[in-house]
Amino acid sequence: MAENFTSRAENYSQWYNDIVKKADLAENSAVRGCMVIKPYGYAIWEKMQHVLDGMFKETGHSNAYFPIFIPKSFLSREADHVEGFAKECAVVTHYRLKNDPNGGGVIVDPDAKLEEELIVRPTSETIIWSTYKNWIQSYRDLPVLCNQWANVVRWEMRTRLFLRTAEFLWQEGHTAHATAEEARNETATMLNVYADFAEKFMAMPVVRGVKSPNERFAGAIDTYCIEALMQDGKALQAGTSHFLGQNFAKAFDVQFLNKENKLEYVWATSWGVSTRLIGALIMTHSDDNGLVLPPKIAPLQVVIIPIYKNDEQRTAIGEKVDALMAKLKTKGITVKYDDDDSKRSGWKFNEYEVKGVPVRLAIGPRDLENNQAEVFRRDTLEKKVYNFDNLDEVIENLLVDIQDNLYQRSLKFRDANIRKADTWDEFLSILDNEGGFVYAHWDGTIETEEKIKELAKATIRCIPFDNPLEDGKCILTGSPSKQRVLFARAY
Amino acid sequence: MAENFTSRAENYSQWYNDIVKKADLAENSAVRGCMVIKPYGYAIWEKMQHVLDGMFKETGHSNAYFPIFIPKSFLSREADHVEGFAKECAVVTHYRLKNDPNGGGVIVDPDAKLEEELIVRPTSETIIWSTYKNWIQSYRDLPVLCNQWANVVRWEMRTRLFLRTAEFLWQEGHTAHATAEEARNETATMLNVYADFAEKFMAMPVVRGVKSPNERFAGAIDTYCIEALMQDGKALQAGTSHFLGQNFAKAFDVQFLNKENKLEYVWATSWGVSTRLIGALIMTHSDDNGLVLPPKIAPLQVVIIPIYKNDEQRTAIGEKVDALMAKLKTKGITVKYDDDDSKRSGWKFNEYEVKGVPVRLAIGPRDLENNQAEVFRRDTLEKKVYNFDNLDEVIENLLVDIQDNLYQRSLKFRDANIRKADTWDEFLSILDNEGGFVYAHWDGTIETEEKIKELAKATIRCIPFDNPLEDGKCILTGSPSKQRVLFARAY
Repeated sequence: MAENFTSRAENYSQWYNDIVKKADLAENSAVRGCMVIKPYGYAIWEKMQHVLDGMFKETGHSNAYFPIFIPKSFLSREADHVEGFAKECAVVTHYRLKNDPNGGGVIVDPDAKLEEELIVRPTSETIIWSTYKNWIQSYRDLPVLCNQWANVVRWEMRTRLFLRTAEFLWQEGHTAHATAEEARNETATMLNVYADFAEKFMAMPVVRGVKSPNERFAGAIDTYCIEALMQDGKALQAGTSHFLGQNFAKAFDVQFLNKENKLEYVWATSWGVSTRLIGALIMTHSDDNGLVLPPKIAPLQVVIIPIYKNDEQRTAIGEKVDALMAKLKTKGITVKYDDDDSKRSGWKFNEYEVKGVPVRLAIGPRDLENNQAEVFRRDTLEKKVYNFDNLDEVIENLLVDIQDNLYQRSLKFRDANIRKADTWDEFLSILDNEGGFVYAHWDGTIETEEKIKELAKATIRCIPFDNPLEDGKCILTGSPSKQRVLFARAY
Repeated sequence: MAENFTSRAENYSQWYNDIVKKADLAENSAVRGCMVIKPYGYAIWEKMQHVLDGMFKETGHSNAYFPIFIPKSFLSREADHVEGFAKECAVVTHYRLKNDPNGGGVIVDPDAKLEEELIVRPTSETIIWSTYKNWIQSYRDLPVLCNQWANVVRWEMRTRLFLRTAEFLWQEGHTAHATAEEARNETATMLNVYADFAEKFMAMPVVRGVKSPNERFAGAIDTYCIEALMQDGKALQAGTSHFLGQNFAKAFDVQFLNKENKLEYVWATSWGVSTRLIGALIMTHSDDNGLVLPPKIAPLQVVIIPIYKNDEQRTAIGEKVDALMAKLKTKGITVKYDDDDSKRSGWKFNEYEVKGVPVRLAIGPRDLENNQAEVFRRDTLEKKVYNFDNLDEVIENLLVDIQDNLYQRSLKFRDANIRKADTWDEFLSILDNEGGFVYAHWDGTIETEEKIKELAKATIRCIPFDNPLEDGKCILTGSPSKQRVLFARAY
C-alpha cells in the first residue's frame, strides 16, 4: 500500500526517518541539530501537552516562566550538576552585532562583550532555585509547585529528530517542600502521572523504577524513571522524576523557618518529559505502512473520504455525511471530511494511512444506495462495511477498541521481550540476537556498571519499583547480588 | 483599603510596579532584563493564549515550531530587516564550557568556537522563510498558515516588567500566499482578530490603523497595528500585523509555479502579540486598590470567603456553599472557596482585591440565617446583599455586566482623550498637559515625522483605517496635508 517506505526489517533506522518525513512530523533545520516541528507533528505535541497540563493542575501544580539564560557561575554552584550540564551547551558571549566596516554583512561587536557569559538553559534548576530563594521564607510559603513549558538546548553532537536534538521542547516541574518525605512523595506522584499518561493515552507500556547511581540526573539523590521498549528491542527512557534532596537549596541558600521556628534547608524535586515522547510514540506503534496513532493522542481521529464520479454524487455523499459529522463532534471525536477535488481518493487513502489516522471511512455511490460505509481501522488494517444508521456509535466503540488493542499489542511485545540472563555469554547473546530488556544480577558497584556499558553497550535502565529480592551472582564479576536489575541497549 | 499602594496620581510608574509586585504577576530575575512570570501572571497569559489560539485555528492556522537560533548570515539577507533587528541581540559564539584549569569554576572552552555565530531569535522571519523554501514548490502548496508560540530575545537596555523585557513570550504568525491580494487580506484578517481579542476579551478599546513608514516593521511593506490608550494618557501598541510583500521570499529565494506554470515569488505576512498585553491589561483597568481584571481574562472569576468564629459555623457555611459552587462550575465559571484557616478574612479580602478577582462573596453566620450573601464587584467596588437562592444567576449576569462596564469605562476614557491640534503650540500643550491621542495634520515625510518625535517625544501611532480625508496644514512644517494622523507619546 504505502510506496517508498523502508520496512522495519530492512532498515529500522531508515524506517523511522521515513515515517518522520512522510507523515510530515518534523525535519532538520538550517541550524545544526535543531529541528523544525511541522504542523502535524506539533499537533501531536499539543495533544500531549493538553493532557499532561491537565494532570499537572489536578495534582496541584501551576505553570510559571523562568528566564532562558543562566549566568555561567550558577552552573558551578552544585558540584554534580555542573559536571552533567556545563559541558555541551550554547554560550552567549555578546549582546550586539554591527555592520562589518569591510562590507561583509554583520559581525559581532567586540565592544559588546558580556561581563559574565550566559548559558542557554539545558535545564532550569539553578535559575529557578535562585528565584525560589526570594519566594520562600517560612513553612507557610511551602510547598511551591511550579511547572514550566519551555525550550531547552543541549549541544548534542549526534542528533536524531525527536529522539535527540540540540534544541527540544519539554516541561520541567520544580517543587519545593518542607520535608524529605513530602518531596519523595511528590517525586513518586509525578512519576506515576507520567506512567499513567504513557499507558492510558500513548498506549505505551512502561516499567517504573529507580535509576542506578551512574544513570542518575546530575544533582539528584534519586532519579525515578519510566522505561519503554521500542520495536527494534531497544529501550527508551520516556520520563524522569528526581528527588533532589537539599542539594539545590544548599547551593542557592534557600532556607525556611519551620514550625519550630528553626532555619532549615528546603527539599526539592524536578521532573520532565519532552518532545522525545513523539519519537517513542512513533517507534511503539507504527508499522511498515507508516505512522500508527492511538486515538487519544491523534490530532485527527476519523477521516471521511467520498468516492464519486460527478458533482451530483459528491453532493449526495456530502449531505449524507453531514449528520454523521455532527453526531461525532457531539461525542468529542475529531473528524474531517476530505472532499478536496484536486486529489484522487487513492492518494488520500495513502496519505491518511501514512499519517496514522485511526479510522477512515470511505463512501461511494453504491454505499449510498445501501445506506452503508466502509470502515478501515489503521491498527489492524482491517476493512469492514457497516450500516450508516448507528455509525457514530460504531466509530465511538471502535476508537476505544483501537486504543485498547494498541496498548495490549505493545504490552504483549514488551512482556515477550523481558528475558533473564544468568551468565555473561547469555547476556551478550540475548542483547545481540534478541534485544529487549535483560533481567540480570549486578554487584551494585558503579565500576561494574561502567564496565558492562563499555563491553556490551547496554546500560541499567532501572531497578523496578516492585523488584523481588533474590540471591544471585553478578553476570560480569560473579560477586554476590541481592536482586536482578533491568538492562538494555537504549536510545 | 489596600495598604502600601502608591496611587496613580502620586506616581503612575510606581503604581504600575506596585501592582505587578503585589498582585504576584512577575519579578526581575538574576539575569539582567529577563523576567520571571509568576504563577498568577502566567495564568493570565494562559487565558490569553487559550482564546487567541482558538481564534487562530478558527481562521485556518496551525501551530508549528522553528529553531530558537538564527545563523548570523540569515539576518543580513533582507536589507531593512538586518537594520532593525541585528543590533541588540544575544549572540551565541561557543558550544562548550570546561573546568577552569586554575580552579575558578567553569570557563568558555576556546576550542569550541562556532564557525558561524548564532543569534537567539528576536523574531523568526528569516529562519522560517529559509524553511518555507523547502515546503513551497507549486501553487498547490499555498497558502501556508503557521503560527508559533515562543520566547524571543531583544537586548533592551531599559526594561520594564511585561512592557519591555530582554526575553518575552509571544506568538508569531508567518503565512505564505500566491497573490499580493490574498496576503493583504490575511494581514487585515489577523489585525481584526487582535482587535476583537483586545475589545471583547481584554475589554480594551483599540484604534486599528496602518503605521507610518518610520514606524514600520523592519522588512515590511505595510504594518497594521492596534493602538490602546493607557490611564496616564500614553499610547501602547498592542499588536501588529505585517504585509511583507515578496521581501523575504526574495531574500530566501522562495518561488512557486503558479497556475500558468510560471515561477513567481511568494507573498508573505507576519503578525504577533506578546506578554506585553499583560502590561496593557494592567494599565487599562486597574485602580489605586490594585489589579482589576475583566472576567473573560481572569484566572479566577469568583472567590467565596466564609466569615466564622468557630468550626460549627465554618462547617455550616461550607455546606451552604457546596451547591452554589457546583452550579457556578456547571456554568463554566471559575470559582474558589477560600476557607484557609491560617489567614484572617480581612487579609483575604485585601488579597483578592489586589489580585483583581472580579467578584467576591462573603458569607457569615447572620447571612446563613437570612439565606443571603454579600456580593462585592471589583470594578466599581460596590457591595450588595443578595438572596442565596438564585445567586448563581446573579453572579453569571454580574460577570457579563463587569466585562461590559470595564469596556465602556475604558472606551469613554479613550474617546475623551482624542483631541485635535491645529498648531504646534496646541499640539505640545495637549501632550504636556492632557496627554492622550492627538489628531493632527502631518506633511507625510519621514523627515517631519522624525523631527516631531525629537521635539515633542510623540510618534505617529497610526493612520486609522477609517480616516476621513481633510485638507489641512502640517503642524510642524505648514506644508499641505490630506489627512490628520494619530499622534501620542507612547510606551
